[in-house]
Amino acid sequence: MAHHKRPMAAIHPRTFRWEAREGGKVGVITLDRPERKNPLTFDSYAELRDLFRALVYATDVKVIVVTGAGGNFCSGGDVHEIIGPLTHMTMPELLDFTRMTGDLVKAMRACPQPIVAAVDGVCAGAGAMVALASDLRLGTPRARTAFLFTRVGLAGADMGACTLLPRTIGQGRAAELLYTGRAMSADEGLAWGFFNGLHESDALLEAASRLAGQLAAGPTFAHGMTKKLLHQEWNMGLDEAIEAEAQAQAICMQTQDFRRAYEAFAEKREPRFEGD
Amino acid sequence: MAHHKRPMAAIHPRTFRWEAREGGKVGVITLDRPERKNPLTFDSYAELRDLFRALVYATDVKVIVVTGAGGNFCSGGDVHEIIGPLTHMTMPELLDFTRMTGDLVKAMRACPQPIVAAVDGVCAGAGAMVALASDLRLGTPRARTAFLFTRVGLAGADMGACTLLPRTIGQGRAAELLYTGRAMSADEGLAWGFFNGLHESDALLEAASRLAGQLAAGPTFAHGMTKKLLHQEWNMGLDEAIEAEAQAQAICMQTQDFRRAYEAFAEKREPRFEGD
Amino acid sequence: MAHHKRPMAAIHPRTFRWEAREGGKVGVITLDRPERKNPLTFDSYAELRDLFRALVYATDVKVIVVTGAGGNFCSGGDVHEIIGPLTHMTMPELLDFTRMTGDLVKAMRACPQPIVAAVDGVCAGAGAMVALASDLRLGTPRARTAFLFTRVGLAGADMGACTLLPRTIGQGRAAELLYTGRAMSADEGLAWGFFNGLHESDALLEAASRLAGQLAAGPTFAHGMTKKLLHQEWNMGLDEAIEAEAQAQAICMQTQDFRRAYEAFAEKREPRFEGD
Repeated sequence: MAHHKRPMAAIHPRTFRWEAREGGKVGVITLDRPERKNPLTFDSYAELRDLFRALVYATDVKVIVVTGAGGNFCSGGDVHEIIGPLTHMTMPELLDFTRMTGDLVKAMRACPQPIVAAVDGVCAGAGAMVALASDLRLGTPRARTAFLFTRVGLAGADMGACTLLPRTIGQGRAAELLYTGRAMSADEGLAWGFFNGLHESDALLEAASRLAGQLAAGPTFAHGMTKKLLHQEWNMGLDEAIEAEAQAQAICMQTQDFRRAYEAFAEKREPRFEGD
Repeated sequence: MAHHKRPMAAIHPRTFRWEAREGGKVGVITLDRPERKNPLTFDSYAELRDLFRALVYATDVKVIVVTGAGGNFCSGGDVHEIIGPLTHMTMPELLDFTRMTGDLVKAMRACPQPIVAAVDGVCAGAGAMVALASDLRLGTPRARTAFLFTRVGLAGADMGACTLLPRTIGQGRAAELLYTGRAMSADEGLAWGFFNGLHESDALLEAASRLAGQLAAGPTFAHGMTKKLLHQEWNMGLDEAIEAEAQAQAICMQTQDFRRAYEAFAEKREPRFEGD
Repeated sequence: MAHHKRPMAAIHPRTFRWEAREGGKVGVITLDRPERKNPLTFDSYAELRDLFRALVYATDVKVIVVTGAGGNFCSGGDVHEIIGPLTHMTMPELLDFTRMTGDLVKAMRACPQPIVAAVDGVCAGAGAMVALASDLRLGTPRARTAFLFTRVGLAGADMGACTLLPRTIGQGRAAELLYTGRAMSADEGLAWGFFNGLHESDALLEAASRLAGQLAAGPTFAHGMTKKLLHQEWNMGLDEAIEAEAQAQAICMQTQDFRRAYEAFAEKREPRFEGD
């Protein structure tokens, strides 16, 4: 199936930066329009969606970091380039747009690579959803995360917020953020389980890369299975989830990485995983 | 469809107080039998259920506050007026009762108005469930919330507690409260995400009204969609939830409130939402 | 149906200790191979599964405590006795094994007795899953809980971890523990809702027994219903869950324990529950 593979070097986004770290195993997405706090546009939405879809076949990339340039993560959908045009669209056009934004989240959850969001400063609207749709989130004391859809007259139901946010920080806190649109502080984000850790702004990307590098040095085929099962079990019964994991783990037990770990243990050394 | 509308003034409950605040947009329910810590009776259960059902058509009311008189929220089902009679009922009669109490929670979740519970002092049994079935909860340092069904020989499975409480405070903490029936302190309630904030007793109702007023001044049609999707997605897969939100948000994008927000932004002023 | 009953005294596990406390109502499982930090073997997995299955009929036992000897809870699947052999198995054999480990969790969730895990020291891999599959968890400041499957080249998807852990500590924290395999400290476990409380090592078993004894003195038929509904509602809609609880609670309202509680209240004394 090698003809299905599409290495990282074959992906050339135009609306954000895309570069390799950690010996090519970590792909870093940088939203890079710092003068506007890195808003999303119709084009960047689509290109992000396409990148995450391509990652299913970019088997050389093992972990993704997503971050923003200039001290902010992402200010969400651009008011002039997105919100203005939306006010003039027909229903089919609107649904095309909301489905495209949802497809970005679906693609983020469907690619096998764990995604680490590195969040500084403003993290708002669709930007907050990109952070929430990631697997892990590192923040800074300056990070302000706002699901501010209500501030522009919309529902908190956007890109999966009403299912992702309650599962991450609890139903009551999620309701508050979605109904009021208020910003969650970095301290709240840490205490509530939105952030996995906080770092100073100048250490954030390094910390995210280190975490990504650590994951990339792990059993990456198994990581992809962890991610798939976290997704598959979203609305499964407990007994059915246990059977799903029995099958998934049996598959992982036939990987070389499992054998490598056992042999390393027997020889009292650290295992060296290769992702197969 | 105006003939389906039923304004707030047409609702006349007898077993609790019901009054308007914030220019008529906020309806306040006050459980008002303070000498008994505001217990529920067969009649007040039914009347509460009917009020929340009527709210679907009371389009002049945008947000609900529910509170209790005299420094307590609600002591739950009255021992003499409810528990005594239940010990003599047939199974069909018992099921009529438990379904009626469940219908109260269903009606609270089905009305489009966000519900803010203002909880002081005793918040027990069915009273704790009324608080839990609300969208947002403000407490006081004196608030003691007990899902004490086990103390009267019953299961913690009452009015949806086994699904609502784990989603709100986590599976392990919910299990402890439901198996032991012990009271959750106000500090625990805040740390665990049950309460969205704590206020002193004499400032509680004002804080709840202010929060309700803030929500009532927002895009209330969109709030109703947020509430509906939080409900709809209770046991949806993530991909299906994302599609549900794409449809819901596309609907909201055709509201006047969305256009109003954009125009206000373009004119650098605060938007003025009208709920349509 | 008395011929289906199988009292506690009829259960004779060989690979761990099994003894009665609190007048025979509390059964204590002690993983007891302290020199190896109480690992699980093929035999002990199977015997634990069989014990929890037998508990459905051991109606004299009301609550279970599970703990480990020698200052550790459980180090998980034994590297030599389990992991080594797994590296040589066929797929059907592997699936036999992963299904057996999953069956242990299914049996823990299917028995009507609440399970209290008393966790000191090492709590790793399948051991962490035994703690997580319990209803309540008490720890010590020394407790280190690691879902370390990834460290041996496997997925975090093991024995239901990808559904149980997010529900207990939140999606983001669960993802971190499952992808990295790092240990959760006791303080994290308490703050995140994994542990219901922490006690010093020399007071742990006493605290767990006291909690178990308190539950055993409660309405144990109703406890079993609480446990069953927590399980049944794992992926139910909210309205369906409310109906399920209406039926469950109506059943509990026909128990003697419900009547006993009411009579005790009327006579201003503590109720004495008997579990029927």
